[in-house]
Amino acid sequence: MPGTPPTRYAYLGPEGTFAESALISAVGADEGIRQPAAGVPAALAAVRSGDADAALVPLENSVEGSVPATMDGLADGDPLLITREVFLAVSFVLAGRPGTTPADVRSVVSHPHALAQTAGSLARLLPGVVPLPATSTAEAARQVADGEHDAAVCAPIAAERYGLTALAEDVADRPGAVTRFVLVAPPGPLPEPTGNDKTSLVAVVGDRTGALLDVLSEFAVRGISLTRIESRPTRERLGVYSFSLDCEGHVADARVGEALSGLHRVCDDLRFLGSYPRADGRENKPVTPVSTDAAFREAAGWLERVRAGRV
Amino acid sequence: MPGTPPTRYAYLGPEGTFAESALISAVGADEGIRQPAAGVPAALAAVRSGDADAALVPLENSVEGSVPATMDGLADGDPLLITREVFLAVSFVLAGRPGTTPADVRSVVSHPHALAQTAGSLARLLPGVVPLPATSTAEAARQVADGEHDAAVCAPIAAERYGLTALAEDVADRPGAVTRFVLVAPPGPLPEPTGNDKTSLVAVVGDRTGALLDVLSEFAVRGISLTRIESRPTRERLGVYSFSLDCEGHVADARVGEALSGLHRVCDDLRFLGSYPRADGRENKPVTPVSTDAAFREAAGWLERVRAGRV
Amino acid sequence: MPGTPPTRYAYLGPEGTFAESALISAVGADEGIRQPAAGVPAALAAVRSGDADAALVPLENSVEGSVPATMDGLADGDPLLITREVFLAVSFVLAGRPGTTPADVRSVVSHPHALAQTAGSLARLLPGVVPLPATSTAEAARQVADGEHDAAVCAPIAAERYGLTALAEDVADRPGAVTRFVLVAPPGPLPEPTGNDKTSLVAVVGDRTGALLDVLSEFAVRGISLTRIESRPTRERLGVYSFSLDCEGHVADARVGEALSGLHRVCDDLRFLGSYPRADGRENKPVTPVSTDAAFREAAGWLERVRAGRV
Amino acid sequence: MPGTPPTRYAYLGPEGTFAESALISAVGADEGIRQPAAGVPAALAAVRSGDADAALVPLENSVEGSVPATMDGLADGDPLLITREVFLAVSFVLAGRPGTTPADVRSVVSHPHALAQTAGSLARLLPGVVPLPATSTAEAARQVADGEHDAAVCAPIAAERYGLTALAEDVADRPGAVTRFVLVAPPGPLPEPTGNDKTSLVAVVGDRTGALLDVLSEFAVRGISLTRIESRPTRERLGVYSFSLDCEGHVADARVGEALSGLHRVCDDLRFLGSYPRADGRENKPVTPVSTDAAFREAAGWLERVRAGRV
Repeated sequence: MPGTPPTRYAYLGPEGTFAESALISAVGADEGIRQPAAGVPAALAAVRSGDADAALVPLENSVEGSVPATMDGLADGDPLLITREVFLAVSFVLAGRPGTTPADVRSVVSHPHALAQTAGSLARLLPGVVPLPATSTAEAARQVADGEHDAAVCAPIAAERYGLTALAEDVADRPGAVTRFVLVAPPGPLPEPTGNDKTSLVAVVGDRTGALLDVLSEFAVRGISLTRIESRPTRERLGVYSFSLDCEGHVADARVGEALSGLHRVCDDLRFLGSYPRADGRENKPVTPVSTDAAFREAAGWLERVRAGRV
Repeated sequence: MPGTPPTRYAYLGPEGTFAESALISAVGADEGIRQPAAGVPAALAAVRSGDADAALVPLENSVEGSVPATMDGLADGDPLLITREVFLAVSFVLAGRPGTTPADVRSVVSHPHALAQTAGSLARLLPGVVPLPATSTAEAARQVADGEHDAAVCAPIAAERYGLTALAEDVADRPGAVTRFVLVAPPGPLPEPTGNDKTSLVAVVGDRTGALLDVLSEFAVRGISLTRIESRPTRERLGVYSFSLDCEGHVADARVGEALSGLHRVCDDLRFLGSYPRADGRENKPVTPVSTDAAFREAAGWLERVRAGRV
Repeated sequence: MPGTPPTRYAYLGPEGTFAESALISAVGADEGIRQPAAGVPAALAAVRSGDADAALVPLENSVEGSVPATMDGLADGDPLLITREVFLAVSFVLAGRPGTTPADVRSVVSHPHALAQTAGSLARLLPGVVPLPATSTAEAARQVADGEHDAAVCAPIAAERYGLTALAEDVADRPGAVTRFVLVAPPGPLPEPTGNDKTSLVAVVGDRTGALLDVLSEFAVRGISLTRIESRPTRERLGVYSFSLDCEGHVADARVGEALSGLHRVCDDLRFLGSYPRADGRENKPVTPVSTDAAFREAAGWLERVRAGRV
Repeated sequence: MPGTPPTRYAYLGPEGTFAESALISAVGADEGIRQPAAGVPAALAAVRSGDADAALVPLENSVEGSVPATMDGLADGDPLLITREVFLAVSFVLAGRPGTTPADVRSVVSHPHALAQTAGSLARLLPGVVPLPATSTAEAARQVADGEHDAAVCAPIAAERYGLTALAEDVADRPGAVTRFVLVAPPGPLPEPTGNDKTSLVAVVGDRTGALLDVLSEFAVRGISLTRIESRPTRERLGVYSFSLDCEGHVADARVGEALSGLHRVCDDLRFLGSYPRADGRENKPVTPVSTDAAFREAAGWLERVRAGRV
């Protein structure tokens, strides 16, 4: 757009993290500029303050679980919207300066989470070497590049960024870990429905037997599947429960819209977090014929005729 | 309305039946003319053909149960609308010609249903007198007036119509019987909502475990109570079930409208039979705050904002 | 059984009714003696007093609907058990004395229900002949045999019993009518499960939104289908609803037993009316693998181990 | 118990962690010996191998969310049982060697999670000091005691253990964080019901619309409330969903036992993780009269009589 400054993307920094890697995979280098943030709260704050146009933050990780800073950061404070989800395989490399061989390594450094997920591999590859902590995997790579340590467990992007070479690839003890990131923007036009979308919500309900069943019934009667649910503690208010939910479909879909209206009525509070294309490589379950937009339209026409007495 | 002929009301005849009594209680003598019909099908056919403007027919009786001729007559054929319900206490009198005393009675006559419901009283009042059948309670009164028999079990209106006097009143063995009649009209504007209405439906669903639960869920998630339900055989189609239902509320109510739209989508067939003022002397259950029209309006506004990204 | 007097079967009389026909079809002539009763209440009372060992009474008719006298007679009073259901095609004959032809007929007589169901045929077969009422179809046949009238609409058994011949067969206007009778006995051992059984219940619940949904959930979570449901007025107690239900399966089945226990807990009142072989020519829906007796047994064993800490 | 060696408790080490603090609060020093483990997997492995009699591991944290290593470590592998839950307020201290004042501090060290949760306080208390990572808060305290750094963010127990003094207490940016630990033991007798218990489960169900609703229905029909639910990815098997659940009540309770039996039948897999006293300072919701053990016993007696035909 002529005259429009490039989009500014905040991400969970520093440079060389998996978050930057995910952002690069999602947004072409020429589509915007990338700004590392010191943490999830900082990345979200940058969007809320206008210092960034969007932020890419991790929502959940198949090994580490959900990311409360993101969950809570979206559930509280000024509204933000998820406009996209990005999945990234978490593939650790053991990286050293060029010319280094495993036998040369006297010290290995990384973020404690990364060390925990590669403990078995490190014991096998670098027997007797005690792992040391760093504040991030990218910082670990920097320390190795600067000669402070011999090897780092980090993202491929960090190795590349700091000119390191891989002593070993895919060193996670349990391969296949995936992190789900979300791109978060200020309120504004929603992504167009694609036919394979997800919708994210936070629902707060009274603490009574069957309250969650009532919430799920609003989805079930409209033929909508959930893809994630998590009860969240609500520190501030006793006697209520908070649920973080993802469901299949887009709020522009008739069935999802009616379900969300229903939840809005019956929940103590309902926060809409966004509708966006599904990106985990799976397809939503087929919409049953009675739950399509066409079926809702037809039913609305029928109701209008009935109300007018034209049965 | 100038130039409009008086409304023609068909009712389950002959003259002097409880149906005529109910019609008189519901429609002032100057509001229309009354036409007896030979049976429920004939009464409904008169409305469908335009020979009558409306028909008053029995739907259920607290002693005799539902009236299949009415149930099926409304469920099948060209659509008709219930515009009113009328409850009438079924109060049998034992009637004879003026001057007759119980000791004079050598024969007693009535419709077999009426004889069945008064068998104990008759045995006590008229020991040794064998009851004889007539095609209707009104016909029985006529036979007594004409001297064919000595006493009839009939409606008070029939006794009055044929100039008989009551030898005994309220002779039902089990007092308190009530018949629910409905006034049926061709499709046209519905009665205005009064805040204490009922809606009648026939829902056809596939014969699978949980199908009825799905139907009831459409009501429950919108906070709507049922007042009557009855599974009906569907002769024509194997593998489907038909349910005759009354629920609280008017189709003009947001919650009822949405529930009916939902049923229209998920049922194999849904026939709307009318929304009309509740007349059984009871009040609908209070509408919960989350199910009022205002709550639905507010939710619709919320949804519109969400879809526009104005969260 | 040596020394045991023959079983005494009461049935809805008089002799020659469809009820006798149904009883004959169900119980061989040498298996017991048949006693006509003056009405459903009398038939049930005979069983309760010990004057009969069992009673065959109509429960519902595909044209006339449910039979409240039977419904209420089983729901109230001393407990009785349905031990069998019997379906009988309601096939009316137009019967006259031998030698009579339709052209000879000057009067036709029957129970008003039978006259109503054959009105079209009679108008065609006997144009101009005014139908006359009798207290039962069998009584109508007797009157013809005695020369009081020329023709009767009755059951084939009545024609045979009174030596009449059929002037026309299957004279119902809407063919295919079926009556469901039930054989009712005093409390005692239940019929053995056959794998294709039904269970009948009367459930009383508080009058609150969702109460019926709760009742149906008890069936649905155990994978049990209903075959009939009917809300019944409960005159005696305001604020409660009564439901008459039939479900698939036998109370001896684990899933049905657990469902009934659950209903017993959550209902204001639950009356068990019997488990008996299904006889409508249909098969129960296949029991899902997770709802079989074997699955319940396996789960009970699992629970026992869990409670003992042997996980 | 004479001759019994003291109980060996593994916990998430090293010494001086919040886990040790929680263990001390739960188990008296004379009741057993404490063994630090290098991680949650190591702690659970010690119990499975018999090297420890029980392990105290974190399950969820009000700031950091659930602990996947514990969730997955309990859901997979040989069965273990939660026998107790322990809640510990996460109260960070900023600790230095005796005589240190904030103005003296040139370096501050801790586990990155602890640094993240105290970032605001540290910026205020120690402006300009760059936080450094350690593999645990206890290790950070050790480094300060050994003179490698000036101050540590750690648990009070670590400060005490290493002879440090508090420069500042309760330095979390968001006070009130609580960690929920569980004590895990090999299969064996369950804790006695106390009337205020919780039960933990992992349920695996097919990926179809309404599957979770079915799971929740098993609880709802027995009047049981959930206190936590979380969908978990199941990497190994496509097309299934896994849910980690806590509900109110003890498996020895009739309602919980029946619900778990039901889940065992309908779920693809159900793992029982234990029933244990609720320790979060809250009371379970009152058990409704229809869901008490007495109500279940009464219903079982009723069913037995019904099955014997003694209605």
